[in-house]
Amino acid sequence: MKLLEDYIVNRGKVIDGDVLKVDMFLNHLIDVDLLNEMGKEFHRLFGNKKITKILTVEASGIGIACVVAQYFSVPVLFAKKGVHRNVGTDLYTADVFSFTKGVTTTIGVSKNYLKPEDHVLIIDDFLADGNASLGLISLIEQAGATLEGVGIAVEKGFQSGRGKLLAKGCDLKSLAVIKSMDGGRIVFADGEDS
Amino acid sequence: MKLLEDYIVNRGKVIDGDVLKVDMFLNHLIDVDLLNEMGKEFHRLFGNKKITKILTVEASGIGIACVVAQYFSVPVLFAKKGVHRNVGTDLYTADVFSFTKGVTTTIGVSKNYLKPEDHVLIIDDFLADGNASLGLISLIEQAGATLEGVGIAVEKGFQSGRGKLLAKGCDLKSLAVIKSMDGGRIVFADGEDS
Repeated sequence: MKLLEDYIVNRGKVIDGDVLKVDMFLNHLIDVDLLNEMGKEFHRLFGNKKITKILTVEASGIGIACVVAQYFSVPVLFAKKGVHRNVGTDLYTADVFSFTKGVTTTIGVSKNYLKPEDHVLIIDDFLADGNASLGLISLIEQAGATLEGVGIAVEKGFQSGRGKLLAKGCDLKSLAVIKSMDGGRIVFADGEDS
Repeated sequence: MKLLEDYIVNRGKVIDGDVLKVDMFLNHLIDVDLLNEMGKEFHRLFGNKKITKILTVEASGIGIACVVAQYFSVPVLFAKKGVHRNVGTDLYTADVFSFTKGVTTTIGVSKNYLKPEDHVLIIDDFLADGNASLGLISLIEQAGATLEGVGIAVEKGFQSGRGKLLAKGCDLKSLAVIKSMDGGRIVFADGEDS
């Protein structure tokens, strides 16, 4: 998606070699006009599927998911972080390891809001090693719901997330796929967004 | 706002006497159509003011803020939770005590994204004891920005938040003000939403 790539190149910052900061428009300060354009694009990519719910994880996925959900006319469910494991509770849970932070967090959703009849589109801001997406997929599997696709704003294509999700048979679409950012120069993969 | 009151009465749950659960439409599963109606109403209430930014706090405020922001054509800034205090960092921070959870959390926003020239509308899902709102107001004050108003979805009018915010001179508007929920029966205050 050209507009998102332009935002990344013109406003994003590469720090420490492999960290891409987009907190000036995507995950701290949020450009809602951009989210709307992303919503239209995700609808173009996934609009032919039966979707009943959009699933994301707090915190930075929520804003994107809510604006995108308007184009699908479905509710958003966001997984909460830092919940307790699911023994004897009313939550589906999954452990998610963050390479960036070096910690494992347990995410969870209420069993009341994810049902076998749901057809779920996962929406998130970033895909790197794929662990957050795999955690969300685990919640969908536990509920017996159907995963229809995974829509990502920014994918770090040089990390392992894509391979893991494709191995699960996911319909993965990323609006901007970064092939490399060596020396702070961002190079996008071609044709990944359509 | 009649629609939100109807949602609260028909779908909300009072538990433990004074906890109102609205996680089936507002802060876990999110009804985006409702958020849009709230956006229109907040714009009716605050649209005559000069607003340059909407400020909220993660996680459950983000979805509401992003949908509401569409009606003001401004970006959203969300304060992050669990940040470190601001000594020597690039963050404005404030400590927020949660009566519900019994813990103090430090919230923060980047100094890059809250500026003296900003005119800020705070949007949040709940007002109870007002500590989250006071924390956000502190961030605005530290930045030298102008607080234009505080827009709340659901106010527990029998707690101390309103008094604290009015004592600060805030223009506070809540879309649904609960006067009491004794015995699980929800009674709304009249005329607070217009």
